Amino acid sequence: MTPGNANSPDRGEAAPGAATGSGVASDELNALRDDLVAANRILVRQGVLDAFGHVSSRVAPGMDRFLLSGNLAPGSVTASDLLVHDLEATTSAERSLYLERFIHAEIYRRRPDVMAIVHSHSASVIPLGVTSTPLLPIIHMAGFLPTSGTAVFEISDHAGDASDLLITSSSLGASLAEALGDDAVILMRGHGSVAVGASLPEAVYRAVYTEVNARTQLQALALGTPRYLSSGEASTAARSVGGQTARAWNVWREEARPTTAE
Amino acid sequence: MTPGNANSPDRGEAAPGAATGSGVASDELNALRDDLVAANRILVRQGVLDAFGHVSSRVAPGMDRFLLSGNLAPGSVTASDLLVHDLEATTSAERSLYLERFIHAEIYRRRPDVMAIVHSHSASVIPLGVTSTPLLPIIHMAGFLPTSGTAVFEISDHAGDASDLLITSSSLGASLAEALGDDAVILMRGHGSVAVGASLPEAVYRAVYTEVNARTQLQALALGTPRYLSSGEASTAARSVGGQTARAWNVWREEARPTTAE
Amino acid sequence: MTPGNANSPDRGEAAPGAATGSGVASDELNALRDDLVAANRILVRQGVLDAFGHVSSRVAPGMDRFLLSGNLAPGSVTASDLLVHDLEATTSAERSLYLERFIHAEIYRRRPDVMAIVHSHSASVIPLGVTSTPLLPIIHMAGFLPTSGTAVFEISDHAGDASDLLITSSSLGASLAEALGDDAVILMRGHGSVAVGASLPEAVYRAVYTEVNARTQLQALALGTPRYLSSGEASTAARSVGGQTARAWNVWREEARPTTAE
Amino acid sequence: MTPGNANSPDRGEAAPGAATGSGVASDELNALRDDLVAANRILVRQGVLDAFGHVSSRVAPGMDRFLLSGNLAPGSVTASDLLVHDLEATTSAERSLYLERFIHAEIYRRRPDVMAIVHSHSASVIPLGVTSTPLLPIIHMAGFLPTSGTAVFEISDHAGDASDLLITSSSLGASLAEALGDDAVILMRGHGSVAVGASLPEAVYRAVYTEVNARTQLQALALGTPRYLSSGEASTAARSVGGQTARAWNVWREEARPTTAE
Repeated sequence: MTPGNANSPDRGEAAPGAATGSGVASDELNALRDDLVAANRILVRQGVLDAFGHVSSRVAPGMDRFLLSGNLAPGSVTASDLLVHDLEATTSAERSLYLERFIHAEIYRRRPDVMAIVHSHSASVIPLGVTSTPLLPIIHMAGFLPTSGTAVFEISDHAGDASDLLITSSSLGASLAEALGDDAVILMRGHGSVAVGASLPEAVYRAVYTEVNARTQLQALALGTPRYLSSGEASTAARSVGGQTARAWNVWREEARPTTAE
Repeated sequence: MTPGNANSPDRGEAAPGAATGSGVASDELNALRDDLVAANRILVRQGVLDAFGHVSSRVAPGMDRFLLSGNLAPGSVTASDLLVHDLEATTSAERSLYLERFIHAEIYRRRPDVMAIVHSHSASVIPLGVTSTPLLPIIHMAGFLPTSGTAVFEISDHAGDASDLLITSSSLGASLAEALGDDAVILMRGHGSVAVGASLPEAVYRAVYTEVNARTQLQALALGTPRYLSSGEASTAARSVGGQTARAWNVWREEARPTTAE
Repeated sequence: MTPGNANSPDRGEAAPGAATGSGVASDELNALRDDLVAANRILVRQGVLDAFGHVSSRVAPGMDRFLLSGNLAPGSVTASDLLVHDLEATTSAERSLYLERFIHAEIYRRRPDVMAIVHSHSASVIPLGVTSTPLLPIIHMAGFLPTSGTAVFEISDHAGDASDLLITSSSLGASLAEALGDDAVILMRGHGSVAVGASLPEAVYRAVYTEVNARTQLQALALGTPRYLSSGEASTAARSVGGQTARAWNVWREEARPTTAE
Repeated sequence: MTPGNANSPDRGEAAPGAATGSGVASDELNALRDDLVAANRILVRQGVLDAFGHVSSRVAPGMDRFLLSGNLAPGSVTASDLLVHDLEATTSAERSLYLERFIHAEIYRRRPDVMAIVHSHSASVIPLGVTSTPLLPIIHMAGFLPTSGTAVFEISDHAGDASDLLITSSSLGASLAEALGDDAVILMRGHGSVAVGASLPEAVYRAVYTEVNARTQLQALALGTPRYLSSGEASTAARSVGGQTARAWNVWREEARPTTAE
């Protein structure tokens, strides 16, 4: 990792929260940057992100700021690409930003419990958002999915029948955040999904296992009527297995380490 | 990359457009060669090309010349293998050429807007060309696909019932180009598909996301009747997402970089 | 491999079976540790384990001790992470242990013939444990699967309808071991499976080919009513092909060798 | 590659055909060994062979000898592991041999046109040998498959209902060879398939594209009734595309090159 570039308005090493524009000490912010670079690499390796999609992290609990890369493929993101965004989804950097940064801003606004967000187009999840078959928790690793069926955001209800399906405004972000409610995951018809977490490892874990659960469900549906997790099982498993996310995060982080010095 | 071999009639560094036989400055042609080598590598890495299929680029807007490798597996193509072809699909090089180079020649002839073409056998696309189920845009990344169903070129209508299914003549290439019309993609029954673009990154992007869309559609069809993109959504998404192809091209190009000096 | 850390209560080089806490000579135990590290790597490479699941080996025939890693992703396990567990699933090490170590303890308790156990969430197996379609041997490599249908452990029969689906106690482990009976494999609804063997290579082989068989069965079921192995074929194939597991183990071990010194 | 070990009864550098036990000059035999090592690596990389299966080559046209590895996983095979077998499937080497070497011996006996044979368990092919749905050519790359349906060898007709499904005798090999007839490929129920060719590259090509065709057919069948190649198309395509196998062989051979000196 290259050290922070003190000339950047978003990354300075000055007084806590001042030059960083984030309200937190630069040490903490640098550690978070490293984690977020790792999260980008992990999600690419796990097949959740490809050249598109993004992952963000709230700067600190209770803060109205979040770290998100400028407009870049996840596999290319380095620490210096991570910009502090506010809840209007603006930054002080003069760079091209992700078109759909409003997903992050509006969910952080409505969900103080959310510390990290992944937006992806992962392959097996999309089919479960385009028919009347709902995404349901079928493996104990995915107890965080709603047992009443994962909500699908139908963008034409909000943007009309000729949109580009993208969340390109605060207003559309707000509608999506409202549809998410208190859930961990929401699908977006013909587009992808969003997974949120109380920490970066949790959001990454949920994005990965939403994909794994969807793949399992697709195969099980071909065999007959699957037995899904009961609501009791889902909530117990979510607590129990959720406590093991560090194990996944640690090995994924190790595997996703850059192989050459950067 | 080895520098251009000035002895080759197709690659010289002489006066613009003269020794190159292409009508453009050799600097530009060399840059295009590098991009086309990258496109070959990218399409192999993305699983669109394997030992077969090919990608070409028009030499410059309005020109009746295009760059295409001699008869070689895409993963083996280097800058010196790229030959300037004319619209009769001939070159000045004494090398074995692709049997199906007429696909490229005839599409460039009919479509002045097309600057690059990919012909592939990518796995999930072929099934959607052999039954009555049409390939339709189901993800916002594939708004370039026709919402009335992607055309399937039925070669037996043009070459009879005992052909090798290959486009091995100007006449068959012309029939295929006519069937493509103004579309971005056409399927070839029992064979593969062709994707075109206004730039090399766009053609590569479309070939990759035609495959991704097909894979998604195959899975969605197993669940029920999918909701596809509306025609308004498809055209808006094609414009909007199309503007993001550079993001994909840049990261794919980086990933596909040769790991050792050549 | 780092040499054994003589300070560890579980790994000493002292008198046979004394400092090791295992009752066997430390040379043999060290060789077993190397094999078990290899088994972890192999199962990750073969796609049977990911960040979760685990593999163990009984310390020696007739012994009530087994080697299993502390709570760690399989891809991270090194020789010094392998701890001697007793049949209460406890160790003398002060480390976090796998929540589901009781799977191993209770099967070793009931099955003196079992020398190694793999617990995994491998992808194609889970769908065959959530509908009424049973996992059956369809390829000669999987003659070890019961021709009457592989048993599915329904945890709600033992832990009620609001469990986390995990085997987190001796009591649940005992129920699972009882359901396994004399079989080689048991499925766990919405969770995964367990494969056992008379040696570490056999258990690894069975875990890999349970997944391969399941994948084949899923595809065959989409075509019609498959012809499965007859019970005579299954038992003959299990003996015959079982004699070839060394071939697989040797090449897998070679492929899974660490690429850099550790 | 290590040079030939002159001490081996099967690999000497003495007078043509003498010490080699093969009746051909040792130079030619060494070149063939290199090709066969490459074929093993290629088929592993292409996912046709895993730890099991094997590939052989007749020593020279008209000869009753063939080269095949001793009992070893394909990924481990080196030049010194390749043994000259006669049509009784015996060798002069004191090594463990493949249980199913009789597949090769008996096909070479009946098919003088066959110069190379691949026996594999490739994943998508097996499902098409266990139901009443036949494997049919659906892509132009697989015109070598019979348009009347690829034959399935039902071993219980020859070895009874309690065999291990393996071809472990000259008698079973002869039955399989007879069932193959003049075809290029035969399936073996619950086991795998055999592909033959007039050269090693052709047999390898056919094994790879039998798998690709099967995968495509499985997906197409999920959509409706596919249009397969007509018999005229299949035979024309087999001739035409068959002429392009060198392109595939060359790039596959390059990709499968060992990365470190052996």
